[in-house]
Amino acid sequence: MNNLVFQKNRDLDLIALGRLAVDLNANEMGPMEETSTFSKYLGGSPANICIAVSRLGLKSGFIGRVADDQFGRFIINYLKDSGIDYSNVTVDESGAKTGLTFTEIKSPTDCSILMYRYNAVDLKFDICDVKEEYIKRSKAILISGTALAASPSREAVFAAVELARKHKTVVFFDIDYRPYTWKSVEETAIYYSLLAERCDVIIGTREEFDMLEMISDPDNEDDDVTANKWFDYNAKIMVIKHGKEGSYAYTAEGKKYTGAVFPVIPVKTFGAGDSYAGGFIYGLMQGYDPGKAMELGAASASIVVSSHSCSDAMPDINKIHRFIKQYDGEKSYDVKNI
Amino acid sequence: MNNLVFQKNRDLDLIALGRLAVDLNANEMGPMEETSTFSKYLGGSPANICIAVSRLGLKSGFIGRVADDQFGRFIINYLKDSGIDYSNVTVDESGAKTGLTFTEIKSPTDCSILMYRYNAVDLKFDICDVKEEYIKRSKAILISGTALAASPSREAVFAAVELARKHKTVVFFDIDYRPYTWKSVEETAIYYSLLAERCDVIIGTREEFDMLEMISDPDNEDDDVTANKWFDYNAKIMVIKHGKEGSYAYTAEGKKYTGAVFPVIPVKTFGAGDSYAGGFIYGLMQGYDPGKAMELGAASASIVVSSHSCSDAMPDINKIHRFIKQYDGEKSYDVKNI
Amino acid sequence: MNNLVFQKNRDLDLIALGRLAVDLNANEMGPMEETSTFSKYLGGSPANICIAVSRLGLKSGFIGRVADDQFGRFIINYLKDSGIDYSNVTVDESGAKTGLTFTEIKSPTDCSILMYRYNAVDLKFDICDVKEEYIKRSKAILISGTALAASPSREAVFAAVELARKHKTVVFFDIDYRPYTWKSVEETAIYYSLLAERCDVIIGTREEFDMLEMISDPDNEDDDVTANKWFDYNAKIMVIKHGKEGSYAYTAEGKKYTGAVFPVIPVKTFGAGDSYAGGFIYGLMQGYDPGKAMELGAASASIVVSSHSCSDAMPDINKIHRFIKQYDGEKSYDVKNI
Amino acid sequence: MNNLVFQKNRDLDLIALGRLAVDLNANEMGPMEETSTFSKYLGGSPANICIAVSRLGLKSGFIGRVADDQFGRFIINYLKDSGIDYSNVTVDESGAKTGLTFTEIKSPTDCSILMYRYNAVDLKFDICDVKEEYIKRSKAILISGTALAASPSREAVFAAVELARKHKTVVFFDIDYRPYTWKSVEETAIYYSLLAERCDVIIGTREEFDMLEMISDPDNEDDDVTANKWFDYNAKIMVIKHGKEGSYAYTAEGKKYTGAVFPVIPVKTFGAGDSYAGGFIYGLMQGYDPGKAMELGAASASIVVSSHSCSDAMPDINKIHRFIKQYDGEKSYDVKNI
Repeated sequence: MNNLVFQKNRDLDLIALGRLAVDLNANEMGPMEETSTFSKYLGGSPANICIAVSRLGLKSGFIGRVADDQFGRFIINYLKDSGIDYSNVTVDESGAKTGLTFTEIKSPTDCSILMYRYNAVDLKFDICDVKEEYIKRSKAILISGTALAASPSREAVFAAVELARKHKTVVFFDIDYRPYTWKSVEETAIYYSLLAERCDVIIGTREEFDMLEMISDPDNEDDDVTANKWFDYNAKIMVIKHGKEGSYAYTAEGKKYTGAVFPVIPVKTFGAGDSYAGGFIYGLMQGYDPGKAMELGAASASIVVSSHSCSDAMPDINKIHRFIKQYDGEKSYDVKNI
Repeated sequence: MNNLVFQKNRDLDLIALGRLAVDLNANEMGPMEETSTFSKYLGGSPANICIAVSRLGLKSGFIGRVADDQFGRFIINYLKDSGIDYSNVTVDESGAKTGLTFTEIKSPTDCSILMYRYNAVDLKFDICDVKEEYIKRSKAILISGTALAASPSREAVFAAVELARKHKTVVFFDIDYRPYTWKSVEETAIYYSLLAERCDVIIGTREEFDMLEMISDPDNEDDDVTANKWFDYNAKIMVIKHGKEGSYAYTAEGKKYTGAVFPVIPVKTFGAGDSYAGGFIYGLMQGYDPGKAMELGAASASIVVSSHSCSDAMPDINKIHRFIKQYDGEKSYDVKNI
Repeated sequence: MNNLVFQKNRDLDLIALGRLAVDLNANEMGPMEETSTFSKYLGGSPANICIAVSRLGLKSGFIGRVADDQFGRFIINYLKDSGIDYSNVTVDESGAKTGLTFTEIKSPTDCSILMYRYNAVDLKFDICDVKEEYIKRSKAILISGTALAASPSREAVFAAVELARKHKTVVFFDIDYRPYTWKSVEETAIYYSLLAERCDVIIGTREEFDMLEMISDPDNEDDDVTANKWFDYNAKIMVIKHGKEGSYAYTAEGKKYTGAVFPVIPVKTFGAGDSYAGGFIYGLMQGYDPGKAMELGAASASIVVSSHSCSDAMPDINKIHRFIKQYDGEKSYDVKNI
Repeated sequence: MNNLVFQKNRDLDLIALGRLAVDLNANEMGPMEETSTFSKYLGGSPANICIAVSRLGLKSGFIGRVADDQFGRFIINYLKDSGIDYSNVTVDESGAKTGLTFTEIKSPTDCSILMYRYNAVDLKFDICDVKEEYIKRSKAILISGTALAASPSREAVFAAVELARKHKTVVFFDIDYRPYTWKSVEETAIYYSLLAERCDVIIGTREEFDMLEMISDPDNEDDDVTANKWFDYNAKIMVIKHGKEGSYAYTAEGKKYTGAVFPVIPVKTFGAGDSYAGGFIYGLMQGYDPGKAMELGAASASIVVSSHSCSDAMPDINKIHRFIKQYDGEKSYDVKNI
């Protein structure tokens, strides 16, 4: 049981908004100067979360833009093959390009990325791409913070949230702060705060919440204070993550949950946050309490960091249950055999 | 009496933010193609309002940027000579230029303007220009909507309002919608709404409120519905203007006031809104009820449209009182003789 | 007699290309912070030269763009009233603005300007605005160097010169270097050199030629070396100006002429170069030798600097002849009485 | 024997300027929507030509910019490992990105590409990166036309050619027209023409020369007319390519050579032009007549199109000789066994 109210009689469970991108993961370990081949995957935080919940059985859709080229068509095909409704994904004709993320894995804990984000097509989705009828068809929407980084995507997000509130569509907000997409931390704090006031569920790390509060309350580092700040607006559930030390969920009714952790020896660190959010949102939408939902998120994250890709590795619910059942401490799982 | 609470022991009454510009008013009547000389005045809606309240006796200050050139120095000198605190007006060094407004008066009721707004310096003021200590020194701040038209001015406004709310500094919002400074009406609606939620007093025309509501409630044209919408957030007083038909003020406590009107045969139409806002804000800060404050605003507007300039023509309180006393119907006043 | 060959049977004498702008000259002496009124004039170096030769009796035309607003219409009207063919002046619809030059005259020798050049419409004229049929109708074209400062005007100039050479239309090049319109001196040197190679007559100051040669021959300061460098390409007449010390004209046949000077006590320094170029070009097109042409240019310059405006003050040929006849040393002329 | 004069006592044979990029070639055949892995290679026309001549034994260098990231370091390492002097390759710190070319091979004759060129670092090399001392050290420089597509690279090329002419460094110009990097064909024609006037050897297709002449001589399609046009400026050798129908070389002295062709069944079509230019330039620098040089170019091209990559596949001189000797008609060569 949890405090979220999802409207019945809606044919979609979750609509994600924003970034549809391509990951190009180095196939060899080591610095990218020396790696010679790359594998292509669907990427982008809301895309990954959408894939995650879809694989767990939710009916999901997407609002966003793709480039009018081979990568754009690859993304559409991938959504289609994953059973995701792509009727509100627009093909952009301005010449904007799919965002690219090249990844290198120097070691399991030393991973870095090289981004191509100039004129990124995912930031071109605009207010006209957000249809009131579509928002009304879904029980919930998911905003990933990077969509706030630039216009017209920024305004499209505020419009979508306005419409969601009008139609009692629950709003999930995964902060997903990526410094390289922003001009300044002050600008980020402004827009993240304006959005956070309007959301039902906010998921972020302690560092991300510090940034949100840098103008209104720069000295606070206390999770309880943070949670209550947003409960004063519209939040019902807050998740504050502390990395390996685990996560905490708060409810507007004053409950606090400590999240499970399943330490593993990772192949890479990418994808942990997205798979966590996917499992957690799925759990809440099943009506589980936040503690149970966090357990699903944590298990999903541990499975994904044990694999080479993000999107392709998102587990189904059976795999998550097997993982939790079999888990017996920090070691390298042969995830394929779970 | 009104429902606003101004903090005591603050050395400034009102800080205006945003546009400091130059008006170049044609000295001759007729189309600008044919006019040959122009007179230079301080311009910009918040600048005019700041001058207006200052002339009425309030202690005011300004947060904004001026160009590092002759026009920038002219503006600083003008503020200084008007007794306005300019300690938080920054000289911009990026090469941005003072916004210019050339005006032509083809006839008293057919006036038009030619704007120079590329790389306008007034939109360059940023979060760093907004000092918490300064906001704390004032009883109220004034936001003029054009400051929301572009970054970094847009973010600076949200930061200023956040700090004002933290320190119980009253926030006045004059919508002041200028289509040419915006990319689209949808974008305008988004940011105006986000700001309106945070303000104590909102002043706008019926058309401006229609635009604010175009995403959340596109079919509404009812002043009562509009007023109540913003009372649900933080507004305490709402003014909705209907041009020559007069204005209405609403309070969060449910009172409605009909504003006085003083029709005159104008020299030009520019400056009516700014002088109205100046008189109205002054009245509220004196503790008058909204009806009385609207009367001061309307008289001030009638005086200003009877003069050649905006900023230079802002009346003092004695002139307003004389005007009201002597007013006896729509005719051309010889304002200098009041 | 001179060495230029103008094609017969062409209905236009000279087509100027590029800048059509507005000058706003302070009516009062003193720093612009304190001046209160401005008078409006046509401005821009090629516009002024075009007016100058037109007043001297040449049939001239213009290729360029004006803004779709009151200032654009003012410029078209001015050209029309001056008898200049404006059939190839395009009204730009991109939202670009007329370049503005505010001038202040602190003293006759201490003048400065404030430029508005962001998104200047004069730099928007493009290759499509340059019609081969029009270039073919004229005996000569005039390029003013500022038109090279940005695309698409830059490419339009090279296209016009290519067509002029194809049709034996003489190319005059007035270097007219304005640092504020360029990104770097190196860039300027590159494009000025590329253009200079293609021109028949080049007019510039010693400092301007130093800049042209900064990449190919950075140490040269010798006028003879400079003149010969460009005679190796296509130049036939070179004018190198040394301010008050006078000017020198060189011909490809090896002759050198020393220009006359008519020192006067100026009202302001603006417009000297444009009126000089106008008189000089007129003289060459009359078939005078370069020495005589320089005398007309120098007299015209002295008349213009004794007046408040540039374009309005351009003299006719009778006034120039009277000035030369009456000149008797450096003193303030009452130009209106000549 | 040919008509080019290379200065003796210079420690570099050829300096290439401009594009250093990364190719990401799909490893699988088929549309890129479906390919899943990519192999990384050095790319960019002048980079490929530089690699080609280096592998043939010339001492070469490069002037250009690379990104301050993993791809930039990969490029530097590749040049270093190829024995190319990279002392004048600058690491750009503006945030510009390495240009990327994703290639797909749907069939040997149906290949297409997907370019990432926003804020491409190769177009950021500027006049300051072009050192007179370095140009003086080389017998020849190579300009690839794409470097003219934007500032500041455009101006850097003109500066380099000016310095090359000053120091009798031979200038090779490979037109290499890529429409997607340019704003309009007219703009391209202007800059290509300005550059072509200054070059000693010009290599292009018939279509490329048609574009160069579109302003000055739009109706010409005759190779002889084209060749003579540029001989009137500074050209000594002109190569005009007609695809599979072969190529023709002209000399300023009036000789014409028909190039050899070695038809093969290609793996892909990429890289043909670059390897051709590499072999041809090498031949001319060995003092061979243009016919012999074209044979080397054609053989090199046939070898490269039979391989998966461009840069990696550039042959050494022994391989070219073996290929020519063994060639016996159009069939698929097993290039690795030559």
